[in-house]
Amino acid sequence: MPYVKEAKLKPIGYVKRASKHEDVEDGSLVSRIVIDGKLTRALEGIEDFSHIFIVFYMHQVLKEETRILKVHPRGRKDLPLLGVFATRTAFRPNPIGLTLVELLERKGNVLTVRGLDAYDGTPVLDLKPFNHRDMAVDAKVPEWHKKLEEKP
Amino acid sequence: MPYVKEAKLKPIGYVKRASKHEDVEDGSLVSRIVIDGKLTRALEGIEDFSHIFIVFYMHQVLKEETRILKVHPRGRKDLPLLGVFATRTAFRPNPIGLTLVELLERKGNVLTVRGLDAYDGTPVLDLKPFNHRDMAVDAKVPEWHKKLEEKP
Repeated sequence: MPYVKEAKLKPIGYVKRASKHEDVEDGSLVSRIVIDGKLTRALEGIEDFSHIFIVFYMHQVLKEETRILKVHPRGRKDLPLLGVFATRTAFRPNPIGLTLVELLERKGNVLTVRGLDAYDGTPVLDLKPFNHRDMAVDAKVPEWHKKLEEKP
Repeated sequence: MPYVKEAKLKPIGYVKRASKHEDVEDGSLVSRIVIDGKLTRALEGIEDFSHIFIVFYMHQVLKEETRILKVHPRGRKDLPLLGVFATRTAFRPNPIGLTLVELLERKGNVLTVRGLDAYDGTPVLDLKPFNHRDMAVDAKVPEWHKKLEEKP
């Protein structure tokens, strides 16, 4: 079988925020995800999970920004210059976002979640219910990452 | 800004298995991911993480299988019929796979990982280093999911 050269994906829904001026980095913020009404049946049972991953498409990233290979995490010059795949920066070849959120409610085709760092209108590509296989309790992260989590 | 209707993504690399006959569901299996040589610098520093998420494109899923809305988890009729988004089935509108793996080694543009449930030749879309924000220690899963994890 030849190697597949492209993946064409259609959004299953979009992020809907209460206001376009919300700080998306504020992990306590609640947002809604409005899923295509034709896919409502595909959501049945998701409400029994407390946490889900949102896989989204960071559509505001510019073409030239997808060619960036190295960054300082969150622009912090006191941290090392790293390959984009060693970070969660939006500047990456495929600007896919992955965020674990708390699922507060599902009503029909609308999910209410807490902790999504995506802008209003962001296309959502997939939803993955969280389970223990997604978890590495003993995971190691580099020293710079520990600094990142401290207040700068 | 109008809603984005499509995301066109190019693989950053491909899964390379020792043999096409390996059981991809065997979580102990080691596989390699060969990243596009032009992106080698983008990997710098990833080796300092013990675990990474692999975001991949399940290219063997047929078009008609992406229209399936409900499934029995892993085909098990003793478990409820659920919306595909309540499961991790490959049959979903966008056949994106998401798997947490152990990163054993990086040599140049080649990653060696343990626990990837993807076939030989699978296009890889993104890599996300795992950190504690990806983890919900107190996550709740439904009853059927606990049964799924037991031996059938």
